[in-house]
Amino acid sequence: MPAKSTSADNLKANIPDLQIVIVGAGIGGLVAGIGFNRAGFTNIVIHESAKEIAEVGAGIQISPNLSRLLRRWGVLEDLRGYAVALEKNSIRRYENDAEIGSSPFMPQVEQQFGAPLWVVHRADLQMVLLKAARKAGINVQTGHHVDVVDFGSDGTPNVSPVRRPRYKVNNGEWLDADVIICADGIKSHTRRDMMKIYGQTDHAENTGDAAYRVTIPREKLLGRPELLKLVDESVSYRWIGPGGHIMVYPIRNHQLFNMVLLHPDRCDTEESWTATGPKSNMTKFYSSWSPTVRALLDLVEDDEIPEWQLKIHRPLVSWIEGNVALMGDACHPTLPYVAQGAAQAAEDAAVLAVVLSLINDKADIHTALLIYSELRKSRGETVVASASKTRDALHLPDGPEQIRRDEAIGKASRGESNSPDLWGDRLFQAWMWGVDIQQQAVDRFEHLYRQTLAKKQVHSEARRNFLQERNF
Amino acid sequence: MPAKSTSADNLKANIPDLQIVIVGAGIGGLVAGIGFNRAGFTNIVIHESAKEIAEVGAGIQISPNLSRLLRRWGVLEDLRGYAVALEKNSIRRYENDAEIGSSPFMPQVEQQFGAPLWVVHRADLQMVLLKAARKAGINVQTGHHVDVVDFGSDGTPNVSPVRRPRYKVNNGEWLDADVIICADGIKSHTRRDMMKIYGQTDHAENTGDAAYRVTIPREKLLGRPELLKLVDESVSYRWIGPGGHIMVYPIRNHQLFNMVLLHPDRCDTEESWTATGPKSNMTKFYSSWSPTVRALLDLVEDDEIPEWQLKIHRPLVSWIEGNVALMGDACHPTLPYVAQGAAQAAEDAAVLAVVLSLINDKADIHTALLIYSELRKSRGETVVASASKTRDALHLPDGPEQIRRDEAIGKASRGESNSPDLWGDRLFQAWMWGVDIQQQAVDRFEHLYRQTLAKKQVHSEARRNFLQERNF
Repeated sequence: MPAKSTSADNLKANIPDLQIVIVGAGIGGLVAGIGFNRAGFTNIVIHESAKEIAEVGAGIQISPNLSRLLRRWGVLEDLRGYAVALEKNSIRRYENDAEIGSSPFMPQVEQQFGAPLWVVHRADLQMVLLKAARKAGINVQTGHHVDVVDFGSDGTPNVSPVRRPRYKVNNGEWLDADVIICADGIKSHTRRDMMKIYGQTDHAENTGDAAYRVTIPREKLLGRPELLKLVDESVSYRWIGPGGHIMVYPIRNHQLFNMVLLHPDRCDTEESWTATGPKSNMTKFYSSWSPTVRALLDLVEDDEIPEWQLKIHRPLVSWIEGNVALMGDACHPTLPYVAQGAAQAAEDAAVLAVVLSLINDKADIHTALLIYSELRKSRGETVVASASKTRDALHLPDGPEQIRRDEAIGKASRGESNSPDLWGDRLFQAWMWGVDIQQQAVDRFEHLYRQTLAKKQVHSEARRNFLQERNF
Repeated sequence: MPAKSTSADNLKANIPDLQIVIVGAGIGGLVAGIGFNRAGFTNIVIHESAKEIAEVGAGIQISPNLSRLLRRWGVLEDLRGYAVALEKNSIRRYENDAEIGSSPFMPQVEQQFGAPLWVVHRADLQMVLLKAARKAGINVQTGHHVDVVDFGSDGTPNVSPVRRPRYKVNNGEWLDADVIICADGIKSHTRRDMMKIYGQTDHAENTGDAAYRVTIPREKLLGRPELLKLVDESVSYRWIGPGGHIMVYPIRNHQLFNMVLLHPDRCDTEESWTATGPKSNMTKFYSSWSPTVRALLDLVEDDEIPEWQLKIHRPLVSWIEGNVALMGDACHPTLPYVAQGAAQAAEDAAVLAVVLSLINDKADIHTALLIYSELRKSRGETVVASASKTRDALHLPDGPEQIRRDEAIGKASRGESNSPDLWGDRLFQAWMWGVDIQQQAVDRFEHLYRQTLAKKQVHSEARRNFLQERNF
């Protein structure tokens, strides 16, 4: 039985020189690198295909389940100067700014969950993480495109791989590793290859929505006190209307105003941080929305607005194959409506760090990755589903259903019912934000290790043949 | 949040008068009744279709994961007088009694797992349980055939039922209950109806095997010292040969010798405790087996031997529907080769008692049953798969694979490798026998309660429609 550890705060890898290769230096790959480093691993390489790590993205949420992990890893304080601690979320009617309901955030959330709720620019988080990774001696290689990953296994669930995984960088020779962590994002080609093993194709369903991302520097709001207030206070607003909604909040210590604008998809964009759409489309859709919304959009100078298409990805058959694991958007790309993209990637990283640090034999890597799946897959997929559900609630056309929804949001604000907006629902928050998944991984490891070995004994080659003969 | 409990030894139902209806007074139904009673429930009815509870079955194992629960429920001591504590299992070659390997059982197993390993006659266990149930004031109604169970739900996973479940007894009026536990065995019609909801048909795959069950009273062995020894000592033997194996051990305080004889199925029997086959078929198949085996079979006087067909049942989509739960053979019928039939039913009962005792609102019954599934389904199905796997290992024809298997069993006896016979494999035993699933249910309830509520919020009506529109 692998050695025990009782706290996620002092992990100490039993095989510190385990050769860990991480594909991608986005939020997921970087938190994975840092998580492994903090668990005592010393042989970590991150391959990033971009030549330079560029400032992309917009505001993202550092929810308590993420801030708890960043604090444990010693990077939360580095982020504080770039963050805004949100005091509440206010849900507004699209046409007239009327408040439908609100959820208190800070300081109540920190009191309840023991970790704060902040918002930051994705790029600021990435830069803080990159700096921390480099400071920790993690080898971050940019301009390294991982062309292909060879899982070293034959796709039989619960059966150990036949050999070590391999990969190619920039069309070079095969390189190998003890374990490969694929944090290669929403367009992960490792996911596609893994799905092929199970006869699945990598296909996403359109939601019918796309999103514009806009940021407005504070100085542009000077002289407009009613708008300046929005960046100076610590409140997020969600305007909800027929077929769309707008999410706004200040980031970067109130120096930048962040807006994400959901609207019907014109089907001429893509799932990407770098696609754009013309500003005229944006102003047209929101022309019937409140004066505040229109005043904000008037301040946007660019003609081309970053726009991405929002899709729903089905749950995968597996997140792991051989000694290769998917993590982050590579295995659970999500709609943004419960603001859990970065947090769920960090939960993956946290659990991977635990399970790999607690084994003491490289032959157990595959078992460790199965335990990772057991701890993370269902939880991650439920979060993805919660974002889809919240989407349905937010985009209702005006009518009886919308009136019932608005009443429910109002009641939820007074603690009288659940909220159809799961981001603001207390019961859902308790599960989404209240779980310390890394500590849970430590606590449950021993039992799950035994259980996984038992399952592996059952699902051996012989078992597989037996089942195949019977078309089981 | 429901009230906490810290030990499975002192459960105290928050809703003691919950109206619990159990279908079937086999081992599963009776342990469920007793488990609920010990958790403080006072309103328990068991409906059994048989007019009288008859002595059927043969020897079964009281493994540590079962004896631990029976001890907690105060019925283990009542069983002691009917039991034999096995000291070891000896695996023999079919043609000449040569020992291929052996596993130590008692007292080592009790020392390791804190609970004993016994074997008893199924009928003795059932009578002890029936007596305990009646003594506890549980209303056991014989001659009550439950014709149909109405789940009160529409088959949407994770969505609470629309109303209380109902059932009919002996073609009478609809009766209702807060929760219905279906322990109606391998031929469960509730399982069939539940599968229909998910578009599945209830179909089992033939393994190609059938089993004779024979019991020989000790007095018939008097004057045959070499055979008398088998009933007087505390050893189980497993003769393994091409296409079949024989499992024997003494039961009923050494007064009865129990034999189960696996052989190729002639496809003229059925999955039943009461079907039979002619003795001539039995002696013919085992005519090339060892003199000991043949001498034992010579002592069998009956012309018709109880025989049952061994099938593999696929894992079900769900074990619960609305406020109705399947348990025992009704949801995880198993091959007998790791001797877990009764134990797995008792684990179901133990977990059901925990989850229903910890809720404090009847609206949470469905959530409690989802937690039961979460705790039991994967574990139960892995045990079923382990029995199928062990079957493959035991019935190999003579040849290179069989030689490798026999070597592995020998090595496993010396602690040098895993055993292909999972019943005798130490690693598998640690998981199968070492887990106190009832205590685990207590320990994990709070987290699973939050998680299940989160999932239920996500999988609501709206979510379902949304997915259906997209053929998701």
